[in-house]
Amino acid sequence: MSKPIILTGDRPTGPLHLGHYVGSLANRLRLQNDYHQFLIIADTQALTDNYDQPDRIRENILQVALDYLAVGLDPNQNTFFVQSLIPELYEMTVHFLNLVTVARLSRNPTVKEEIRQKNLEESLPAGFLIYPVSQAADILAFNADLVPVGEDQNPMIEQTNEIARAFNRIYKTPCLKEVKPLIGTVGRLVGIDGRSKMSKSAGNAILLGDSFADIKAKVQKMYTDPNHLKVSDPGTVEGHVVFSFLDVFDPNQLEVQELKDHYRRGGLGDGILKQRLTGLLEDFIAPIRQRRLEFEKDPGEVLNICRKGSEVARNRAQSTLQNIRKAMALITPS
Amino acid sequence: MSKPIILTGDRPTGPLHLGHYVGSLANRLRLQNDYHQFLIIADTQALTDNYDQPDRIRENILQVALDYLAVGLDPNQNTFFVQSLIPELYEMTVHFLNLVTVARLSRNPTVKEEIRQKNLEESLPAGFLIYPVSQAADILAFNADLVPVGEDQNPMIEQTNEIARAFNRIYKTPCLKEVKPLIGTVGRLVGIDGRSKMSKSAGNAILLGDSFADIKAKVQKMYTDPNHLKVSDPGTVEGHVVFSFLDVFDPNQLEVQELKDHYRRGGLGDGILKQRLTGLLEDFIAPIRQRRLEFEKDPGEVLNICRKGSEVARNRAQSTLQNIRKAMALITPS
Repeated sequence: MSKPIILTGDRPTGPLHLGHYVGSLANRLRLQNDYHQFLIIADTQALTDNYDQPDRIRENILQVALDYLAVGLDPNQNTFFVQSLIPELYEMTVHFLNLVTVARLSRNPTVKEEIRQKNLEESLPAGFLIYPVSQAADILAFNADLVPVGEDQNPMIEQTNEIARAFNRIYKTPCLKEVKPLIGTVGRLVGIDGRSKMSKSAGNAILLGDSFADIKAKVQKMYTDPNHLKVSDPGTVEGHVVFSFLDVFDPNQLEVQELKDHYRRGGLGDGILKQRLTGLLEDFIAPIRQRRLEFEKDPGEVLNICRKGSEVARNRAQSTLQNIRKAMALITPS
Repeated sequence: MSKPIILTGDRPTGPLHLGHYVGSLANRLRLQNDYHQFLIIADTQALTDNYDQPDRIRENILQVALDYLAVGLDPNQNTFFVQSLIPELYEMTVHFLNLVTVARLSRNPTVKEEIRQKNLEESLPAGFLIYPVSQAADILAFNADLVPVGEDQNPMIEQTNEIARAFNRIYKTPCLKEVKPLIGTVGRLVGIDGRSKMSKSAGNAILLGDSFADIKAKVQKMYTDPNHLKVSDPGTVEGHVVFSFLDVFDPNQLEVQELKDHYRRGGLGDGILKQRLTGLLEDFIAPIRQRRLEFEKDPGEVLNICRKGSEVARNRAQSTLQNIRKAMALITPS
């Protein structure tokens, strides 16, 4: 593996959607020739806040892998793997926990925000508090060079590198490599309700496997300008979800600009915009859906791809763990 | 293994001393015929608050195993094993962390007390906060029936059983077995300074491997009655360390009673008491020291006993982990 290593992936909490495509999958497709991407399907991490829904997490491993294949991520160029199949990650997590204070974890802005959003203050599971340490293990285990992040995920990189530096200093070793963020490669797509970013749990997502009927119905429900009552009324483009999507998915941005001007002046109905977007999204999703249906015929084979990838990933993690155990002077089995 | 299972052990932070003998080793010797004892040399746990001294922890694995053998714990009747050689324990710890809240861990009285003693409030490593969860993994991994505890360790049993019940309830399985405390079997021995219980770090310990000269010097330094200046003075027996030791190690308790009466009346010097105790301790330690010296000749063989025991322990932990992973619907490697 002479290509630089990227570590990235998804929690298998549901099938992927257009938000994932814009936010990360498109980027991975662009990168897959020049980088070796380790794509982690992070079931263990998903369990930290879904521990009481193990079947859902298990089923979505397949769904996420299907989505990877459907969008065109090549399992020969990338390593698909399942977090819980790499036991070395658990051991690294436990060793790293000694190098991070509780105070530091409590200050992690990402964790703080998620605690707030999920109202976990009173009942915060320890597994959730420490998940940045488990994330650091995921990244450091594979000696990743780069991790694609949005701006709000920078604390994850900082925490990881703090652990790498602390470990190398305390155990007098160069074995852990600091990782660099691949910033700005992460886009955001708003949900069809216009209220927040697209997410399955918010019920505002268009899935990569959605049928034409699904797409049509969801575009129909998109938030537009609530004051644009008659076609002749002047309208507002900002916050208009259909326009947000046209910005991303319409190859003819000149025409999109003209449509925006027309909408602002008045005389352009939402129906025309929605019809245009429905067609564009169907053109975009149809081949993905088609490939997905093909792969769905043999789910065993898809899981095999994940299992084989997990063996590759495990080899790499084992080699890192060996260095870690050696530096920590831990006893050898024989 | 039809005998009931006991899980107990030591952190390898130093060689064991008379306090360990009175507190746990004597008890283990009594139990070793009727129970199968899994004796954990808890190096991973020792690292939670000694993470920057890995070499010391590593060296003391051998010291603890030597002490076990020297006092007469039979590796054929008991399973000696090293915690870090059982990777299954790391995985169980991570899964169990989702079932315990940070608030619950922070309230654990044992952890609270140790945080206070060690002034860890500001810089509490996450690994230390969560060590009760790692202890629960140690106990539950081996399906232990009993854990010998002092009264102050009861929270450990409660935490373990809370995790077992939560796991069984959430994942609809009977796979984890609640453990019972073996209370009152844990004695305490005061240190030679009379100030606190015997511990190597307090510098008030008589080691199981101490030479006659060491024993003599340490008994000489024992705290007695500071107001008992002349032999003829009446003395106080309470808090008199030599008497505390005679209570434990003198087979002739009738004579000890007479000595106490004599001391209280006046006319009995500390020198006579110290001479008596030195003789008794030498009689007690000499055969232990002798066996220790024998085993020290082949440290590789002693570590082999630990490694073989770790394989036995690992098999048992693997079988528990398999049940855990099945209940959690985690993906199988193939």
